[in-house]
Amino acid sequence: MKNILQREIPEELEGIGKLEAFEGAFSKLKKGWMEEKTVPPPNKAKMPHSSKICDTLRDAILKTKPRDGMTVSFHHHLRGGDNLVYEAIKILADLGIKDITLAASSLTTAHDPILPYFKDGTITQVYASGIRGELGKAIAEGVLPKPFVIHSHGGRVRSVHTGKIKIDLAILAASAADEEGNATGAHGPSAFGSMGYAAIDSWYAKQVIVVTDNIVDYPCVPQSITQNYIDYVVKVDSIGDPSKIAGGTTRITKAPMDLQIARLAAQVIEHSGELKEGFSFQVGAGGASLAVAKYIRKIMKHRSIKGSFILGGVTSYGVDMLNEGLFRSIFDVQSFDAAVSSSLLENQYHIEIPAGLYANPFNCGCMTNKLDIVVLGALEIDTNFNVNVITGSEGYVRGASGGHSDTASGANLTVVVCPSFRGRIPIVKKKVHTIVTPGESIDVLVTERGICVNPQKSELKANLESAGIKVKDIEVLAEEVEGITGKAKPIETTERVVGIVEYRDGTVIDVIHQVKE
Amino acid sequence: MKNILQREIPEELEGIGKLEAFEGAFSKLKKGWMEEKTVPPPNKAKMPHSSKICDTLRDAILKTKPRDGMTVSFHHHLRGGDNLVYEAIKILADLGIKDITLAASSLTTAHDPILPYFKDGTITQVYASGIRGELGKAIAEGVLPKPFVIHSHGGRVRSVHTGKIKIDLAILAASAADEEGNATGAHGPSAFGSMGYAAIDSWYAKQVIVVTDNIVDYPCVPQSITQNYIDYVVKVDSIGDPSKIAGGTTRITKAPMDLQIARLAAQVIEHSGELKEGFSFQVGAGGASLAVAKYIRKIMKHRSIKGSFILGGVTSYGVDMLNEGLFRSIFDVQSFDAAVSSSLLENQYHIEIPAGLYANPFNCGCMTNKLDIVVLGALEIDTNFNVNVITGSEGYVRGASGGHSDTASGANLTVVVCPSFRGRIPIVKKKVHTIVTPGESIDVLVTERGICVNPQKSELKANLESAGIKVKDIEVLAEEVEGITGKAKPIETTERVVGIVEYRDGTVIDVIHQVKE
Repeated sequence: MKNILQREIPEELEGIGKLEAFEGAFSKLKKGWMEEKTVPPPNKAKMPHSSKICDTLRDAILKTKPRDGMTVSFHHHLRGGDNLVYEAIKILADLGIKDITLAASSLTTAHDPILPYFKDGTITQVYASGIRGELGKAIAEGVLPKPFVIHSHGGRVRSVHTGKIKIDLAILAASAADEEGNATGAHGPSAFGSMGYAAIDSWYAKQVIVVTDNIVDYPCVPQSITQNYIDYVVKVDSIGDPSKIAGGTTRITKAPMDLQIARLAAQVIEHSGELKEGFSFQVGAGGASLAVAKYIRKIMKHRSIKGSFILGGVTSYGVDMLNEGLFRSIFDVQSFDAAVSSSLLENQYHIEIPAGLYANPFNCGCMTNKLDIVVLGALEIDTNFNVNVITGSEGYVRGASGGHSDTASGANLTVVVCPSFRGRIPIVKKKVHTIVTPGESIDVLVTERGICVNPQKSELKANLESAGIKVKDIEVLAEEVEGITGKAKPIETTERVVGIVEYRDGTVIDVIHQVKE
Repeated sequence: MKNILQREIPEELEGIGKLEAFEGAFSKLKKGWMEEKTVPPPNKAKMPHSSKICDTLRDAILKTKPRDGMTVSFHHHLRGGDNLVYEAIKILADLGIKDITLAASSLTTAHDPILPYFKDGTITQVYASGIRGELGKAIAEGVLPKPFVIHSHGGRVRSVHTGKIKIDLAILAASAADEEGNATGAHGPSAFGSMGYAAIDSWYAKQVIVVTDNIVDYPCVPQSITQNYIDYVVKVDSIGDPSKIAGGTTRITKAPMDLQIARLAAQVIEHSGELKEGFSFQVGAGGASLAVAKYIRKIMKHRSIKGSFILGGVTSYGVDMLNEGLFRSIFDVQSFDAAVSSSLLENQYHIEIPAGLYANPFNCGCMTNKLDIVVLGALEIDTNFNVNVITGSEGYVRGASGGHSDTASGANLTVVVCPSFRGRIPIVKKKVHTIVTPGESIDVLVTERGICVNPQKSELKANLESAGIKVKDIEVLAEEVEGITGKAKPIETTERVVGIVEYRDGTVIDVIHQVKE
């Protein structure tokens, strides 16, 4: 079958089941009350005054009675510094457990060491928002017997709620925890900030282990995760390297072209009609996106505009804007910078939120639904404004869906910032390799070679033009780019579907075919 | 059938279904992982940037499409000052809605005005932790066609999780809320403190209305209830009278006999072996219970003991002990005194907790399971230490199960304090009218005529006696009391079961028969 974006979707995939084709960003919501069944969180029971403390992670895992075919989940708040996924999977592999579904909120290059377990049958399926590095290459080449699933941050919560992901065991790193499993990422030697992605796992997993390098006196405060969901607590020497949480993507770029794009994007935002008293704001962490905040900050100061909230992955830059009084609050699902932790700990208007509150489309109002302006990046964007943030120019998985489609669909103004090409690789083009976010959610594209407004947004175009901002037709831009880079060499793939890209509502927006080695 | 306490329980009751007999405080937990099914919380969907604000409570209720046979829930944090239950039920009644199940976390004498709706078929069933006043009399006399259900605070959460209570509409009072329904009771003109009982309703109700007299700028901080669960928000002139939150039961008594009992109880606690560094503590709000805290405070200071946490219904007295550094933290499911709100707002170690974390037995460790010492009251106690806190001497419902059985089962030391008789009414007696908390959970009874230790607790008895505390046989005490008061006149009841007392695990510990008018 073809979905509404003309992507060919199989009716059914072994290892996943029947697929539902993407019909538009709000097709399922517009049907009103959800008919999709949700699943119940587990009942558990524990005798009073019994201890949850285990000596080692291996002991804790053994107590959960691991079995073949189980689903194990992790959060990725330690980002590039995470070591726990590897440690835990190694234990399971050493115990001889096979056919594991790995349900991590995201996977980074820090997880390259688990590749051998993709190859030996320990892990046979992956659900994640993002996959990168060696894993992303191997997975695109078809290393796993079952199709992997890429979900958005909000979509992951929906998947757990609806039982598409059934977590048997959640293993959750915390930078501080007490003997009962009350836990936080906001303080301790390995502080990493918000634990937003871990909340849903703690609520729904049949069993939950909290792993920390820092047991504190009872009670641990604040309590990002609360004891009534935690089965076991383990003290380890190290949960990872918090210095690697902030990668290059979470600092403001110094690259002249990115800064130029960011400056243009800030102009677009200034004249969009959305930059007004009480507006809310999110910027992605990559390249030009974060730099946009720098220019918006100037404009806000100059025009004495005070915003309502900053949302999302939170950087020190966002915290500075909160402290300057430019925004009333921050909602923090993920801290892109360990330095953010102290603000999270001390400022009651820096609010930690679970991923469901951040972006799950099926509730009474996630934060992304209240967002006014979001600035996002792209690996590729097509002339219908469909965005790829998951596969690179060789067809390998090297990015993350993250909050891209969540915020794009919710925000009043969605700005995509990216260069029009990189090296000899076109970024603005007729057709992207993989669609993650549908063009209907993108309002405007800002590149170094011009600004393109989605034809559906005539008011925005008028606003920009009346401010003297030149708008270019995206077809024209794509042709210009092709003129420079030449036609992109098509990525050679087989018929085999190795992964699907789930839209946040659970429909399939695209599939990923096996890349020929 | 008879339950383990020899109470006759019907196999089945119309309006409830099959009943399960109480088998002991931990019989269900000891079976390990719960087999009882839980139910899923609802999926909801809402378009971005749509408004939740309704002009009136009536408008909001109309939007939820009320229907005959629905279940409507409320929290009771405004206690004696609550007006919302009446307002909402009146609207439903005026709309002609019949056969409502009222699922309030508790009902007080403030709710007497809804009695007409018990009589005219508007309300046909009640689930509550407590019922008092006119309602308690009428309900014991059989005013409702379906049996009412008394549950504990923890049991209520279990009931919602397992679908025994299926809430169609939750109407939740808040002293501050924003346009999206983020809400708190911690500040505002009608501040009432913790919203602990309301959390489960917000998560599981098919639709949720937040009602406040104080709309604040977005976002409301702190967020006891979060927007992703809230369908509608209504601003009203008044949510009730917060000056009536603290009743006489939440201030320390000046009655000489209560103070004498409290002093004795503090001695018992001091020598029990449980009053040690890092202990946790809860006192009930009634009569002698709260006064025990006064003496424990002195002992703690004298012996330089620092406790871990105060749990429960929280009074200003508890806050004072936190501020003095006598305890490290307070876990607050319910504020017995509006004055507590500022502490809840400002002290991060004064932690608001949902009722499930407080006391639901079926999770990975509720707070009551970690409690060391609890001091509780009693309306009656029998020679097997079974306690009645629900029916008065005329058989009317005039109390609350509350956290009585939850804390009694979890605490290492459960102390019941009460006079041995009141007026000509025996309190310590051979048989109580209704059992709420099983004797197995009670360690020691302290009265003005003597201290009785549960025969199961020989170590406690030895500890007390070696400290020179005289211990009396409870049978002897009961006979003494009967000698003074004479034999209690039996309460005349019919065969009809008008209500059941659910133990926290969902089994039936007792039934309440219709009182002859």
